[in-house]
Amino acid sequence: MTETMARPPLDKKVISRLTEIFGEDRVLTNNTDMITYSYDASFETQLNPRKPEVAVIALSTEEVSECVKLANEYKIPVYPRGAATGQTGGAVSTKGGIMMDLSKMNRILDIDHRNMQVMIEPGVIQNDLNEALKPYGLRFPPDPGSANMCTVGGMVSNNSSGLRAVKYGVTRHYVLGMEVVLPTGDVIVTGGAHSKALKSVSGYDLAHLMIGSEGTLGIVTRLRLKLLPLPVTRGIVLCSFKELEDAGAAVNAVFSSGLQPSAIEIMDFNCTKAVNMMKPELNLPIDNEAILVFEVDGAKEEVSSQVTRLKKVVEKYASYIKFSDEPEECEKLWQARKLVGAAVGLLKPGGFRVYGGEDICVPISRLPETLREIHNIADRYGIVCGIYGHVGDGNLHTGPVVNSNNEVEMENVQKMIDDIHDLAIKMEGTTTAEHGVGIVRAKYMDVEHGPAMDIMRAIKKTLDPNNILNPGKMALPN
Amino acid sequence: MTETMARPPLDKKVISRLTEIFGEDRVLTNNTDMITYSYDASFETQLNPRKPEVAVIALSTEEVSECVKLANEYKIPVYPRGAATGQTGGAVSTKGGIMMDLSKMNRILDIDHRNMQVMIEPGVIQNDLNEALKPYGLRFPPDPGSANMCTVGGMVSNNSSGLRAVKYGVTRHYVLGMEVVLPTGDVIVTGGAHSKALKSVSGYDLAHLMIGSEGTLGIVTRLRLKLLPLPVTRGIVLCSFKELEDAGAAVNAVFSSGLQPSAIEIMDFNCTKAVNMMKPELNLPIDNEAILVFEVDGAKEEVSSQVTRLKKVVEKYASYIKFSDEPEECEKLWQARKLVGAAVGLLKPGGFRVYGGEDICVPISRLPETLREIHNIADRYGIVCGIYGHVGDGNLHTGPVVNSNNEVEMENVQKMIDDIHDLAIKMEGTTTAEHGVGIVRAKYMDVEHGPAMDIMRAIKKTLDPNNILNPGKMALPN
Repeated sequence: MTETMARPPLDKKVISRLTEIFGEDRVLTNNTDMITYSYDASFETQLNPRKPEVAVIALSTEEVSECVKLANEYKIPVYPRGAATGQTGGAVSTKGGIMMDLSKMNRILDIDHRNMQVMIEPGVIQNDLNEALKPYGLRFPPDPGSANMCTVGGMVSNNSSGLRAVKYGVTRHYVLGMEVVLPTGDVIVTGGAHSKALKSVSGYDLAHLMIGSEGTLGIVTRLRLKLLPLPVTRGIVLCSFKELEDAGAAVNAVFSSGLQPSAIEIMDFNCTKAVNMMKPELNLPIDNEAILVFEVDGAKEEVSSQVTRLKKVVEKYASYIKFSDEPEECEKLWQARKLVGAAVGLLKPGGFRVYGGEDICVPISRLPETLREIHNIADRYGIVCGIYGHVGDGNLHTGPVVNSNNEVEMENVQKMIDDIHDLAIKMEGTTTAEHGVGIVRAKYMDVEHGPAMDIMRAIKKTLDPNNILNPGKMALPN
Repeated sequence: MTETMARPPLDKKVISRLTEIFGEDRVLTNNTDMITYSYDASFETQLNPRKPEVAVIALSTEEVSECVKLANEYKIPVYPRGAATGQTGGAVSTKGGIMMDLSKMNRILDIDHRNMQVMIEPGVIQNDLNEALKPYGLRFPPDPGSANMCTVGGMVSNNSSGLRAVKYGVTRHYVLGMEVVLPTGDVIVTGGAHSKALKSVSGYDLAHLMIGSEGTLGIVTRLRLKLLPLPVTRGIVLCSFKELEDAGAAVNAVFSSGLQPSAIEIMDFNCTKAVNMMKPELNLPIDNEAILVFEVDGAKEEVSSQVTRLKKVVEKYASYIKFSDEPEECEKLWQARKLVGAAVGLLKPGGFRVYGGEDICVPISRLPETLREIHNIADRYGIVCGIYGHVGDGNLHTGPVVNSNNEVEMENVQKMIDDIHDLAIKMEGTTTAEHGVGIVRAKYMDVEHGPAMDIMRAIKKTLDPNNILNPGKMALPN
């Protein structure tokens, strides 16, 4: 357990004031609870958990505001936290202080289907929201892999996306407005104090400053989200390529044809192997460098036509194609992609899959080169890994698999993670496409952004002069 | 001519320094040129033009940066300007100072079709960009009515959109990164200093703070834009409704059916009348309260299927339907919508169309009520107007038509504009969906945003401590 507190411990007065705000039941200080709050899904916090001094479970904007006011008065750090599915240490303490658990602020406040929008609290789980929207034929499109666990508030803080960003965009595109508790405890509403408009250019769009700021500028307490109609059905084209370059060419050819797939996913040979191990009946071709899985969506007739067109475009490049617009067969083809995250762990007996260097994004044209180079890096350190990702965006998820009791491997995988991040920048890419910066990628920020970092720090200082909100993240002041 | 200078006139030293930066040919001070720069497309600046003291024509980032440094040293206002097609006075001087003409920074620097992106200077005209992209089967989707004149830099500064925002989103969604000269003259690059990634969540996304800030926080000197494939073809369904409520119900039914039209446009009875006057052969039905024009796009077969589905959905509500998926016939049907902006001027012999209160946006469910109420307001002031707009977003363009030599009418139309803005806020909408705030809507900002305005002002102050960039706009410091 890392004890990183560079501050005097919390005044007893503070605990008693917190109890006044939240009631005794929702102010936690015992060690077991603090351990629970000491990590998220990142490799880093699994290795080095970081305990807060107290955790509070918020149920209302007023409570959040009162707590932040108190923290600001005493200059105590506050760490907003949703479901802690993040992979960057974004939702853990860096120097004691108050953990603000928002997962119980999970009410869907208003499904305004006629106006294609919904008002929710930040703790609503993505899947729960979409289940509630289904009867209205609507949905909130961003779909991270953790959709059945992650909170929408967390998605907004990280600007999450997922498989279907290539057609439907990222979380940012669906935020119409938000209520935010600022680091002073003041509450503002962005996008118009009482607006239900679907489009506005009135004033600076402060929501867009908050989105992706990982809880360092404010704590979101309400979200007004734009919804889209549910697509009626989908079709899948799964194809395999002798060489990575052919897969790249196929992706370009699909875009040039005017097709707009709802997902374009890549799996390398190791992922293919792993999926076959998990589900031998899928019997994916293993002598090839990459598999692409395309999804198209829309009404039945349109999907059928798109699948035919897509197949025609990719067959020039692929050595193997399967396709369908029948729901059951689609589900089967889709399984290959669906299982890959869990399957990569099988690449090494007794190994576990590390989340680190797992979210780089490079220009599409440099994907083949990048995939090869990641495998070179992995070989250099003797690490097994599978690579998959959202190839239409250039977003690659590398899954290194290690044995936690192998010290050399544990050291080497960290070096490998560093090298992958460096590679991303060298390839004119970014260290993170959808998972965020948090603690683990803070060290790359200056290289990635140059002088723009000064402006990020100046804005942080303006909104949070006492640096109480989620300090020590994103290479902002510690 | 409004002379609003509350500052001592420019030092001669400043002019001589400007001449060093730009060369003599590109530093303009004569009165004729100053008049040219004294207005944009807004009613307000046509009534009250505002002259700068000097105009400079920038050709490079270095020149922009040097000029801003100089302005910051002497605390002289700088007003960035593209094609001045804006309708809010956003690109005119408020207190003398330097007009920065960016329209000649109009190079397309890199069409990177394999990576679905383009790098341009801010002065590129929207249409020119799309013409250059056509051979690659790509396009930059945001499509304001002024696309054949407006600069992309201006579109970014206002976060413009247009007819197809309902499917393709707004300008914001296509900005991957930008080079910006800050009010200090420092230059930053957002979205990664050397990145060509299509997706990134690394750091605060400063581009999104700049987008829609109307040149008050920085001057954009390069833009990295995301592109989409060109749709192959389109289909049109034009339908007419006895009552506004039926038109509203039809829009909701279309969304509920899972269809995603690329445009959903509304025209009220006055617009219908005006279009028939301009083009009698269109012979639009005039005994109805509203016409809707739906556009769908995609591949031939898919469009054909979508048109059929769409027709089936709307025929329950409409009293008249025409539809096609043949290019020529589509063009004819589309003309109804295309002509409306120019046609409304015909509603009053010798009248001219006022841009003011022309860009409100309300929740879709309140559109019928809002349309009726706008006509009530117009009747109250004895003003003729046509209303059209992007109904899928709730965005209404009101076109009042007046005689400029009728003093009562000229006074009344201003009152009408105020009432329309108040109505927008009352209807849980916004005063501006895509045109911006500038000078003309500054007075509604505090009502619309409440305490969020304090944060906008604080950010402005942090980035522009001397308040030199486009002062007196958006209810930021004057």
